[in-house]
Amino acid sequence: MVSARGKQIKFGSCLTPFNSCADRFVRSGYSHIQRDVFDMIKEASKIDELSGIELIGTGQITDKNILRLKKLVEDRGLGVCMVLPDIWARAKWAKGSITSSKEKIRKEALEEIKKAMDLAVEMNCDAIDVWLGQDGYDYVFQTNYIQIWQWLIEGIRECANYRPEVRICIEYKMKEPRKYLFISTVGKTLQLVEEVNRENVGVLLDIGHALAAGENPAESIALLSRKGKLFYLHFNDNYGSWDDDLTVGSVHFFHLLETVYWLNKIGYNGWHTLDIFPYREEGLQATKESIEWIKKAYRIVERIDKEKMEEITFNQDWLSASTLLRKAL
Amino acid sequence: MVSARGKQIKFGSCLTPFNSCADRFVRSGYSHIQRDVFDMIKEASKIDELSGIELIGTGQITDKNILRLKKLVEDRGLGVCMVLPDIWARAKWAKGSITSSKEKIRKEALEEIKKAMDLAVEMNCDAIDVWLGQDGYDYVFQTNYIQIWQWLIEGIRECANYRPEVRICIEYKMKEPRKYLFISTVGKTLQLVEEVNRENVGVLLDIGHALAAGENPAESIALLSRKGKLFYLHFNDNYGSWDDDLTVGSVHFFHLLETVYWLNKIGYNGWHTLDIFPYREEGLQATKESIEWIKKAYRIVERIDKEKMEEITFNQDWLSASTLLRKAL
Amino acid sequence: MVSARGKQIKFGSCLTPFNSCADRFVRSGYSHIQRDVFDMIKEASKIDELSGIELIGTGQITDKNILRLKKLVEDRGLGVCMVLPDIWARAKWAKGSITSSKEKIRKEALEEIKKAMDLAVEMNCDAIDVWLGQDGYDYVFQTNYIQIWQWLIEGIRECANYRPEVRICIEYKMKEPRKYLFISTVGKTLQLVEEVNRENVGVLLDIGHALAAGENPAESIALLSRKGKLFYLHFNDNYGSWDDDLTVGSVHFFHLLETVYWLNKIGYNGWHTLDIFPYREEGLQATKESIEWIKKAYRIVERIDKEKMEEITFNQDWLSASTLLRKAL
Amino acid sequence: MVSARGKQIKFGSCLTPFNSCADRFVRSGYSHIQRDVFDMIKEASKIDELSGIELIGTGQITDKNILRLKKLVEDRGLGVCMVLPDIWARAKWAKGSITSSKEKIRKEALEEIKKAMDLAVEMNCDAIDVWLGQDGYDYVFQTNYIQIWQWLIEGIRECANYRPEVRICIEYKMKEPRKYLFISTVGKTLQLVEEVNRENVGVLLDIGHALAAGENPAESIALLSRKGKLFYLHFNDNYGSWDDDLTVGSVHFFHLLETVYWLNKIGYNGWHTLDIFPYREEGLQATKESIEWIKKAYRIVERIDKEKMEEITFNQDWLSASTLLRKAL
Repeated sequence: MVSARGKQIKFGSCLTPFNSCADRFVRSGYSHIQRDVFDMIKEASKIDELSGIELIGTGQITDKNILRLKKLVEDRGLGVCMVLPDIWARAKWAKGSITSSKEKIRKEALEEIKKAMDLAVEMNCDAIDVWLGQDGYDYVFQTNYIQIWQWLIEGIRECANYRPEVRICIEYKMKEPRKYLFISTVGKTLQLVEEVNRENVGVLLDIGHALAAGENPAESIALLSRKGKLFYLHFNDNYGSWDDDLTVGSVHFFHLLETVYWLNKIGYNGWHTLDIFPYREEGLQATKESIEWIKKAYRIVERIDKEKMEEITFNQDWLSASTLLRKAL
Repeated sequence: MVSARGKQIKFGSCLTPFNSCADRFVRSGYSHIQRDVFDMIKEASKIDELSGIELIGTGQITDKNILRLKKLVEDRGLGVCMVLPDIWARAKWAKGSITSSKEKIRKEALEEIKKAMDLAVEMNCDAIDVWLGQDGYDYVFQTNYIQIWQWLIEGIRECANYRPEVRICIEYKMKEPRKYLFISTVGKTLQLVEEVNRENVGVLLDIGHALAAGENPAESIALLSRKGKLFYLHFNDNYGSWDDDLTVGSVHFFHLLETVYWLNKIGYNGWHTLDIFPYREEGLQATKESIEWIKKAYRIVERIDKEKMEEITFNQDWLSASTLLRKAL
Repeated sequence: MVSARGKQIKFGSCLTPFNSCADRFVRSGYSHIQRDVFDMIKEASKIDELSGIELIGTGQITDKNILRLKKLVEDRGLGVCMVLPDIWARAKWAKGSITSSKEKIRKEALEEIKKAMDLAVEMNCDAIDVWLGQDGYDYVFQTNYIQIWQWLIEGIRECANYRPEVRICIEYKMKEPRKYLFISTVGKTLQLVEEVNRENVGVLLDIGHALAAGENPAESIALLSRKGKLFYLHFNDNYGSWDDDLTVGSVHFFHLLETVYWLNKIGYNGWHTLDIFPYREEGLQATKESIEWIKKAYRIVERIDKEKMEEITFNQDWLSASTLLRKAL
Repeated sequence: MVSARGKQIKFGSCLTPFNSCADRFVRSGYSHIQRDVFDMIKEASKIDELSGIELIGTGQITDKNILRLKKLVEDRGLGVCMVLPDIWARAKWAKGSITSSKEKIRKEALEEIKKAMDLAVEMNCDAIDVWLGQDGYDYVFQTNYIQIWQWLIEGIRECANYRPEVRICIEYKMKEPRKYLFISTVGKTLQLVEEVNRENVGVLLDIGHALAAGENPAESIALLSRKGKLFYLHFNDNYGSWDDDLTVGSVHFFHLLETVYWLNKIGYNGWHTLDIFPYREEGLQATKESIEWIKKAYRIVERIDKEKMEEITFNQDWLSASTLLRKAL
């Protein structure tokens, strides 16, 4: 599959679909599959079009297993497209990681991020995903918001300085697991990135997170691109008010088309990584279907007359765009 | 605490707050507390004002432990206010319980419900909570909605006939864990209850579920009461679009006041049961705070001149109601 | 255009797109078009595929203009598919029509509905659309919900008895203009219809209203059909939380496909009426585009192997449905 | 009324409540009141606690009436706290003002803003409210987002340079009248303000807009304050997903308390201006009630032990905050 600019599309995936997915009601998971990280990677490698996987630092990737992991990934013709520091998957981060009120926790969180940068480098991966999923609040009167931002800026800057060759991708999300997250929208994330003011700090846009924040992903992508800060993309879908992590394109199909149109327009040649939670669907197949829908979207966009669409768009002429889309389907 | 009609308020609670709460990101839970059902009950019993607890059938209450449970509950001066059949907490229910496309699963789900009725009777409890949390769908083209309703009606009727002395409380919820649940709103639930047409089948209104469905709980309570079908209440709060299970009154305080006003008006003398998920809060204290806010709401409502408020309400005279509320605070 | 059951699709439209649309900020409207009802009909008649129009009783259609209207409609080869009593477009209904606390207003509202039934019959139209858009509330402590339901049931029944040959289509909507409307969801509407208990009382499902209520339109259609109460359909689209009245299919395209799939399945042969508000789009073209998207949806659904899809749907097998949809596009 | 820092609270109001409010269904308005701007001001002046009013440039305030207006305002002991350029209330702005694709419209919009600055100065008012309510889009494929931002930045900067002594307050809003507005969240607004980079450009935070964007107003206020960019405040309330413009405190009472707590904390001594739409309520009374609720919030916050609350907040200790709030009520 080749995008409109003639570049190969790089597909990546989180490992989530290759194991049992759980939630607060079915803590043991919705299937009886129990794979370790090696088996998950083997499963992922069955998908021809996949060339990258994401690994969670110190959970899935550690000093102990890194050599074996590296060998397996290479043997299977994969690469690591992203390492995620675990600053959100353990009880210790319950009330925040780099913004915890406890200095000890804040320090440990920064160490965790730096460690993930080290592991990334060792895996020939140039990026880490800093998702501050536990850094937020659940109730009013629970946060000194001004103090928080100081910790956010200083913390990220410290990590950025630690290894300038590794790109820190800040992933924003409106809510969940906290009811309010600090880094929640494209605007606030840009704000953070600009205050940190380091070249290796940018943004990971998760399409579902953008949708659940009431954003139109194409617009957010354009804004980030304008600042040179669109570092990475997560693909999935949802019903607009929660991070449902559905298969790609299953709800917001026209938003997906506009997203792909803009990725072409700005010449994005980074990863197209799936972040889906197929609780009740077979993971391998769910991943393949998602890839097929992204490819379908690219093919449809290719059929659109770009010059015409640019003029139509400039004039806010929806009805003509509608006709063009209808004919391209 | 005594309601306006001179009746003692009966406070109950789920056992959730007395153990570690988990979610899809922190599957092992947000605290290191690991209690079995006996220890959870012991913890609950420390709250003076609590007189009832809810138990999940075959998960928390089984043929094996029932005698010990019964003794413990009695020794601690508690009662069982509700038994919940587990038709949503195991992988086998992933694609539905009494509406599964597999006959075997549907039968097992009905057995599970009947078993819960048996267990309830043995615990001197007159009600079970049928929450069809896995009965729904996640995507379009995934359901034959007409077939589903036949199974729903026949299934619930079969259970109702099994033990007419046990009240079946249907608990509705818009979504989660499925993206769409079949029994999602007060209207659809009443529809089901009326088609089942059995005296012992009614509704469990969870205030948070009503809010997340865009309902005003007081209105839904009134509609159920009008049909004699308000069987039971769950108290908690949220931000209006998801079942956050926050401590009571923390967001929708005036909705809580109107709820309590209507409970007085219709002479509700059933349980006021807490269904909160204090992921990051201490469970005992979170439960106590929630009880205190319900009591506070009752006290404020007591201070409102009922005759005046009835007239104001009849005339849709919000500004006068606003003044009355302001002065009662 | 012919549906899968071999029946001609009947397209209708409100007259809204053929005049300037306004809102609270631009009260004089977003265009300078100022047409009376005759000119709006003439404009509508330019669309070949349109065979029905909706008229608002006593606003657009009166005793005075009815003969001229009738002649114009016939001359242009159109029919009247729906008459709407005006119980929501004047200041007098501000705090409710048939549920106003003032007896005088309630009576006038009932007269308005009956008048619309008379006008419908004279226009050879067999249906009226009772949308209770002002019957609701904006704040807590503003309504005696039980009293309201008595007025709703008695009022609608009185109208149903008045002219049993005219179908009363109750149109539900979550909110707007009131913050909470009484008749808000498919479940509550069915509840009302069943309590009224008259053959000529059923439901008008507006697809956008269903979406904004968090419903999946196909499911709601199935539930209404199951009771023989799906009387009429309004087509439009929105972003899921408000009645945006966008052109058809512009957001929820797969929901539209499932809707059309179910219309075929239940053998719906009623009107497909557009209810869009093209504030900033040219009205004629917006209507045509909307019709084209409905036709497109029918064509795509025709390409789906029904037997296969039924089996897939029965088994909740989303990934297979996804593949089928992808190939049908 | 005096805030915790010992400063007098300055209450202002839009003139909306002093005339009939309309919407898309009742275009002529929900009451029969028809006042010109002079009569609206006279009505507003009946409220003792009100010291400022907002005027819409060239709609309510023009070169022709300015002298009479100035005299009336002074005679009544009022001041003008804000002038709003009309870049959203006429059909000509339907597809945008300063971001219109038509150069002519963009220029006229900038002239309109500058004119408002002139009028403000003449009225001894130091601020204008730039609300870009028509600058956005309704559908995908309707906007070149990158071009838009260039126009936004250059346009606002040009106005800022025109009269550095007038503060330009950018008011953000998620949606309505457009389905997506460009300047929609606190983050994007800060982004715009920082790129414009002029001392006299800051932010108008409308509490209802913040809530409808999923923001917690107190957090947004803190972020703006941190940058010295909290220029002005609009008070109202809503149900969390739409700009309902309800009377203050009627829904999100605890959010209001936290807002007031933070206004004290940061030493805010600017205007507390009401922006409510009392469609069905008497305007004078609705304004008074809203003022009373703000005063009530200040009084409750005064009763909270600040030192204790600061410590509690720092530790994210919601249950202690809950107790403190409960006791302060």
